[in-house]
Amino acid sequence: MATINCDMGEAFGLYRMGDDEALMPLISVANVACGFHASDFNHMRKTVRLAKAHGVKVGAHPSLPDLQGFGRREMKMPREELANCIVYQVGALKGFLEAEGMALNHLKPHGSLYGMAARDESVAHAICDAADVFKVPVMGMIGTCHETVYGARGHVLIAEFYADLDYDDDGRLIITREHYAVDPLRTAARCRRAIAEGKAESINGKDVAVRADSICVHSDTPNAVDVARAVREASKLNP
Amino acid sequence: MATINCDMGEAFGLYRMGDDEALMPLISVANVACGFHASDFNHMRKTVRLAKAHGVKVGAHPSLPDLQGFGRREMKMPREELANCIVYQVGALKGFLEAEGMALNHLKPHGSLYGMAARDESVAHAICDAADVFKVPVMGMIGTCHETVYGARGHVLIAEFYADLDYDDDGRLIITREHYAVDPLRTAARCRRAIAEGKAESINGKDVAVRADSICVHSDTPNAVDVARAVREASKLNP
Amino acid sequence: MATINCDMGEAFGLYRMGDDEALMPLISVANVACGFHASDFNHMRKTVRLAKAHGVKVGAHPSLPDLQGFGRREMKMPREELANCIVYQVGALKGFLEAEGMALNHLKPHGSLYGMAARDESVAHAICDAADVFKVPVMGMIGTCHETVYGARGHVLIAEFYADLDYDDDGRLIITREHYAVDPLRTAARCRRAIAEGKAESINGKDVAVRADSICVHSDTPNAVDVARAVREASKLNP
Amino acid sequence: MATINCDMGEAFGLYRMGDDEALMPLISVANVACGFHASDFNHMRKTVRLAKAHGVKVGAHPSLPDLQGFGRREMKMPREELANCIVYQVGALKGFLEAEGMALNHLKPHGSLYGMAARDESVAHAICDAADVFKVPVMGMIGTCHETVYGARGHVLIAEFYADLDYDDDGRLIITREHYAVDPLRTAARCRRAIAEGKAESINGKDVAVRADSICVHSDTPNAVDVARAVREASKLNP
Repeated sequence: MATINCDMGEAFGLYRMGDDEALMPLISVANVACGFHASDFNHMRKTVRLAKAHGVKVGAHPSLPDLQGFGRREMKMPREELANCIVYQVGALKGFLEAEGMALNHLKPHGSLYGMAARDESVAHAICDAADVFKVPVMGMIGTCHETVYGARGHVLIAEFYADLDYDDDGRLIITREHYAVDPLRTAARCRRAIAEGKAESINGKDVAVRADSICVHSDTPNAVDVARAVREASKLNP
Repeated sequence: MATINCDMGEAFGLYRMGDDEALMPLISVANVACGFHASDFNHMRKTVRLAKAHGVKVGAHPSLPDLQGFGRREMKMPREELANCIVYQVGALKGFLEAEGMALNHLKPHGSLYGMAARDESVAHAICDAADVFKVPVMGMIGTCHETVYGARGHVLIAEFYADLDYDDDGRLIITREHYAVDPLRTAARCRRAIAEGKAESINGKDVAVRADSICVHSDTPNAVDVARAVREASKLNP
Repeated sequence: MATINCDMGEAFGLYRMGDDEALMPLISVANVACGFHASDFNHMRKTVRLAKAHGVKVGAHPSLPDLQGFGRREMKMPREELANCIVYQVGALKGFLEAEGMALNHLKPHGSLYGMAARDESVAHAICDAADVFKVPVMGMIGTCHETVYGARGHVLIAEFYADLDYDDDGRLIITREHYAVDPLRTAARCRRAIAEGKAESINGKDVAVRADSICVHSDTPNAVDVARAVREASKLNP
Repeated sequence: MATINCDMGEAFGLYRMGDDEALMPLISVANVACGFHASDFNHMRKTVRLAKAHGVKVGAHPSLPDLQGFGRREMKMPREELANCIVYQVGALKGFLEAEGMALNHLKPHGSLYGMAARDESVAHAICDAADVFKVPVMGMIGTCHETVYGARGHVLIAEFYADLDYDDDGRLIITREHYAVDPLRTAARCRRAIAEGKAESINGKDVAVRADSICVHSDTPNAVDVARAVREASKLNP
């Protein structure tokens, strides 16, 4: 059965983002922001505690250092610096997991870092360099450098299907700065097909290959709770 | 024998601070900056590696979130937020220690956080809250809340004597924004007396009680290398 | 007639705060955040444009450098640095005013900086040092260092009454990290009395002296739009 | 006669960068950092005062928002956001110029922003959008989008020749993260030729066209003072 993962803990200071309280009971795995695109030490503590209370596994969701851009602007950084950037963030999250007696479940790069790792081998290697330190699986997408580089380096890929984002004709995710509401029913149907057939329709109506070990819902999608509920039903019905 | 500890890894980006390469061979314990008053993910990696190469133990040197003020401006933060702030930084450092196969040796708050913890029980408790997570000793000073609060909470206090800073008549450290060169010979003599007699002369010539489990040298003291060399000799000659 | 001022433009990156679009038509003067407690260069541009579109005057709303704490944590900074900190922010805002062909109307320190200036002469002087540069009136409260220091330095004080915050028995504003909803009708009544009688009831029921050249509504008060509407009516009915 | 311009005021907090005190008497125009790649409100004030004391004209040296990378990492930002980013920084600097009774002389983008503007029309347009606000000339290089875009938009280009950096065979500047010492005599000779003949030798020995309305010396080049002194002599001897 596919797990449901959600990018969580993306508040910052007094700023709110996403309804984590409503989403947490609906998901199985949380990708927790580490303070570089969102969150801070207070929200990280709170999010880890919330996950623990709901029996949700916690992975790290590190980003490029870009709070103002929410990690959705590309930046050029050499592999070694990127690896250090990720180790810092994952380590920080592990501090809170240690505080709550939890283990780190996986690593999932955020936003532009995720997209760059899909296209650029050097970025994918930087992510593996960090994953080597923490010895956890990495979330990503088949048909990209996630699959080829992580695989070649011996890392477990948790293949994701995106419930609330579009794919282009080459099976690449279309990452936007802000997320928009999606139709829960249509999303559930897409998830069922992704799980059952390993296929999804691109933005131009072409079938592209996907694999859905886990289905991703974004907490900053405006109707994220409805989407998560629909996806949860969809993921249960399928083998 | 008293160890020598030094605040290290305080560079940031292209900015340099202190001659870590020259100091590392002279010390036994490094307090490594965690990115909140100084350092960043690249310098943390580099500093941990340098410590490892010289067989130097690594402690975390967390700070108030104040890069521009180098952690030497006081800020009002509630205990729980302070504890979270410290857990974040120590966790981040542990990521790099994990990468290099090293253990966290201790925790030493930086700058104003250190001074505030000496005077304010609530701040000292916040530090213990973080030390509870990582289960390591805390560096501090006798005659302050470091001693009373850390002790009451069951934490080991590594009592420090400051080789390159002055004490007031109440035995309180005088923390300045910038550090100034000190006379190595006079400093060595002060260290020998601190170790042998548990006493130091205040800025007004009064004797105050000190304990020197470890002697601190600041890497941003202009003649830090000469000071460290003199302190090293002094700490060896004593029981 | 008392003007209505509102702290505006407090979004940051993708994070939203307050309903500026709904508030702007209801107010006469906007205190625009300058990027240190909230906002960034994009939101500043947008907020200045919005103010222009509604014929609202724009003042600068500088803060201590504390985005994560929303400028509501006290920090110790010497007068000269504080003045520089304010000049930087006001200058930045003036860049956007220049871009839109608008003039700077006034200066109003934000959050803890406002509170510190009320109590601490040195902080009040730092604000005057910055006001000397830009030659604009300063918003503040009577019965505090705002009145005494700004006055002694020859600056015009725009005396404020706070529609949505409580006062203590000494007439001091009670500044909280988060703002809470207030009853619009009761708030309007308090405003009418402040304007007509120069009095307000403290949190303990004692009358304290106030002056209401301008009435402040916070955009991050949950029902800020309703409050502003009520205050607008109240301020019109009075002499 | 060619002016000598120098990137100045690149310290940050306690961190030092370049010997501004020694360089300021040797130059005619200072490009002052605005806090996004280097500097802060205190160093900006100090640098503007130092320039004033030496009769040096002050231009703004805005950057991508990247303090840790010293503005030398490329980031993808849309034109409108880039323009806002520059307006913010230039406005902030103008605050300090206003405080010291000085006028803004020009605008010169820093580091990667400079390089991106040379190659990418959209970035060059963003710089013009900001220059439209402040109505000052822009520094840049001939043979790049600096020349074509700024020219087409009616902005005055102050053409620069770089004394301490290399050019590739297409006349493009080679921008490195850190700067290295250069031979002052060779540099002076290159400057004389740039001024007299409008030519410079590329890193591969090919002649490329340059124009030297102003000669740039970087304050973070290790022997910047010697370089500036040599360039100063060279620029005087030429027509």
